[in-house]
Amino acid sequence: MSAATPWWKRHARLLGIVVFFLGLWFLPVPEGLTREAWHLFAVFAAAIAAVVVNALPLLTAALLAAAIVVLTYTLTPAKAFAAFANPTVLLVVVAFLVAQAVVKCGLGRRISLQVVSIFGGSTLGLAYSIFITDTLIAPGFPSNTARGGVLFPVILGLAQGGGSMPEEESTRRLGGYLMFCGMASLAITSALWLTATSGNPVAVSIAAEYGLKITFGSWLLVSSIPALLTIALLPLLLYRLFPPGVTDTPEAPEAARRQLHTMGPMSRHEWITAATFVSMIVAWILAAPFNINPTAIAIAGFAVALVTGVLTLNDIHEQGGTLVTFIWLAVLFGLSAQLNELGFMSYVGERLASAFSEVSWPVAYVSLLGIYILFHYLFVSQGAHILALLGVFLDVGVKTGVPTQLMAFALMFASSYFSTITPQGGSQNIIFVAAGYLTQGELYRLGLLTTLFAALIFLVVGTPWILWIG
Amino acid sequence: MSAATPWWKRHARLLGIVVFFLGLWFLPVPEGLTREAWHLFAVFAAAIAAVVVNALPLLTAALLAAAIVVLTYTLTPAKAFAAFANPTVLLVVVAFLVAQAVVKCGLGRRISLQVVSIFGGSTLGLAYSIFITDTLIAPGFPSNTARGGVLFPVILGLAQGGGSMPEEESTRRLGGYLMFCGMASLAITSALWLTATSGNPVAVSIAAEYGLKITFGSWLLVSSIPALLTIALLPLLLYRLFPPGVTDTPEAPEAARRQLHTMGPMSRHEWITAATFVSMIVAWILAAPFNINPTAIAIAGFAVALVTGVLTLNDIHEQGGTLVTFIWLAVLFGLSAQLNELGFMSYVGERLASAFSEVSWPVAYVSLLGIYILFHYLFVSQGAHILALLGVFLDVGVKTGVPTQLMAFALMFASSYFSTITPQGGSQNIIFVAAGYLTQGELYRLGLLTTLFAALIFLVVGTPWILWIG
Repeated sequence: MSAATPWWKRHARLLGIVVFFLGLWFLPVPEGLTREAWHLFAVFAAAIAAVVVNALPLLTAALLAAAIVVLTYTLTPAKAFAAFANPTVLLVVVAFLVAQAVVKCGLGRRISLQVVSIFGGSTLGLAYSIFITDTLIAPGFPSNTARGGVLFPVILGLAQGGGSMPEEESTRRLGGYLMFCGMASLAITSALWLTATSGNPVAVSIAAEYGLKITFGSWLLVSSIPALLTIALLPLLLYRLFPPGVTDTPEAPEAARRQLHTMGPMSRHEWITAATFVSMIVAWILAAPFNINPTAIAIAGFAVALVTGVLTLNDIHEQGGTLVTFIWLAVLFGLSAQLNELGFMSYVGERLASAFSEVSWPVAYVSLLGIYILFHYLFVSQGAHILALLGVFLDVGVKTGVPTQLMAFALMFASSYFSTITPQGGSQNIIFVAAGYLTQGELYRLGLLTTLFAALIFLVVGTPWILWIG
Repeated sequence: MSAATPWWKRHARLLGIVVFFLGLWFLPVPEGLTREAWHLFAVFAAAIAAVVVNALPLLTAALLAAAIVVLTYTLTPAKAFAAFANPTVLLVVVAFLVAQAVVKCGLGRRISLQVVSIFGGSTLGLAYSIFITDTLIAPGFPSNTARGGVLFPVILGLAQGGGSMPEEESTRRLGGYLMFCGMASLAITSALWLTATSGNPVAVSIAAEYGLKITFGSWLLVSSIPALLTIALLPLLLYRLFPPGVTDTPEAPEAARRQLHTMGPMSRHEWITAATFVSMIVAWILAAPFNINPTAIAIAGFAVALVTGVLTLNDIHEQGGTLVTFIWLAVLFGLSAQLNELGFMSYVGERLASAFSEVSWPVAYVSLLGIYILFHYLFVSQGAHILALLGVFLDVGVKTGVPTQLMAFALMFASSYFSTITPQGGSQNIIFVAAGYLTQGELYRLGLLTTLFAALIFLVVGTPWILWIG
């Protein structure tokens, strides 16, 4: 993206961010806030703004923010860097790394082919097979980007197998439909399972500051009804919104069976990976009752993959992108936590809450959720959105009288399903978008409609369900 | 290395490590130690042993150790993962990343060509130029990790300029020799100047409790003879221990001058990088008096390199190896610190030291120094070693009749020069180790020999010198 941006435009944006930052920094400190809290906000807001207007990449913005807060003595080094040791941040990093094992050994592809061989008799069946495959493998993939990397080649194969080419206007709709199903599926299955995306544990740790203890099991209990209903209806809705042209694909199950046959029996590495992931999922489920640290579970799984040779050191040497994620996530996570600790979140929360103080909590609940979702037009990363806004919105909701659990879950689920609202709204989207089957206009239209549909189901069905089981 | 090892040999070694680990773990806990301290020692010792006998790569051993200590409730996750946020560990990571800027823009090549054009008539000349440069800049750098961050890109430029690549068995020895010279130089120059490493002032303050008043000048007076002698001989010794393959390069200075001519004037990126590093060096020198965090300085430099486009995100995406280093260093650093905090180090130190209460002082002096040095196999941080053991060993020495000044200086100098005894014995080593020119086996062998050689000179030459000027 930024490579295509003319240099003067990038410089103008950067200058704008510098002015924005200095303006905030030198503004009189609002009454009720410490100087440190205000300066930290100035740095944090400028960093997020720089990413939103595409003036700086996330990593660069985060590094600048970390350097500035320490060099200006706004935060001590210990506080500014604390989140590098945060178990949640480390879980994100290790989960990214261990997911490579599933991709590399072929297990992910095998599972996908298996599902297609059963459900793939029609285009609609293929779409459902994508959603079902994704739903089944999601809890083992705390990185939905890695999961996209597993689904994408299968979906591309399905599209090409159905004769669909991106540059052929007459055939591209089949591929476009399946690709969008991939993106939409990742958005919803990420809301279904706590461990299906890196953002969820981050969101849970923010919610924990409001007294909510959310486990793998309790998350699934709450998400199951609205998420499964959305998964059941969405392929059909998208089928109507974007008719794929081809409807019946009777040869797809047989093609999948042939490919499975070609793959032969499960390799030693696939067995090891399957056993490791089943053990990890079991351990993650048992983590809360037995006080087992989820990060240590992931580290153990990662170590097993390395000891058995499923992953090699060379595989990890190619994971520089994970280091980038680690750094920006740890920095922004840490700054966000400090912003909270210095009382900024509750301060702004009180201000915003006073705007909603006259309304009844159901009105506040729906309004806050709607504003939170629409805000995602401005974000290129779900993680940054969660870090920047989830705490504030949760705080306001709770202060206005929305039940804590209801507000928290609504925002956490939205943080997953709003990812399709723009093509760059979630990094996992990029893989599917890059295939070129859909125009930018189609992506924005389908994305908004998918997000609105999910929001509707989670509001209308999810709300009473949460209140009932709460 | 490990790829070339037959699988049965690797399995046998791994089995040996498992037996070693379980044997230690289930041994009765020695009186005076907690169960946690003993179990942590079992894990730590097994992890180091696994790496030393080449049963497991460092990353795998560290991951297993981290998983075991947390899953067995030996350490809390917060304590086990704490060092991921340690500013020194982060400084190692960021210093390595920002060093890539010097290499990429060509400045490292230009400086190294400059060095070669003066000293480059022989490989030995290059080695001496490294030691001399380090000796001259050391008193201004209270962080030898930061100093490593300055030396490393130049040494990398020298290695690459000499056609040496880590993965090429035929050429890697030149780079390996120069990299080890960098590590060894940092070890000795840190003993030469009181202000060349953060550990020295800590050691001086411990010695002050025994009535010793040590200043910048008095330290230099005592250290000068043995340290300068070691600096004079060490490049030659390492040259014999690890012949670099290339020896005489009489045409190199002229070729370097020609290449410098071909390079033309400094590019925009080179100017930016030079200005950034000069600023970083000034800030690092001012760090102690003005309480500026050295890690934040490095992060700021890294951010500048990214903002100005000297480094791009793609460059960082290739730095998966840095992630590997980050993970194992943080895990081992954290476990070693906890071993100390749980009282293991001082417990063993006291036991060993009490064994020398009956012997004559010269025997006690040499034995205590030897044990103090060998203890460094268990430490990942020099600072932790000093804090844990220097006081104990000094106390025993003085009680046995060793002159206070002699015992104190011997231990203080050792606390610098023992850093090469393991690859992780000083965080500054990691930057050089990560370049991949040397195998773990070579690092342990050269490290031990270098440490023994330095100890010999400081004993044989340093002892009479201290007694004479004392």
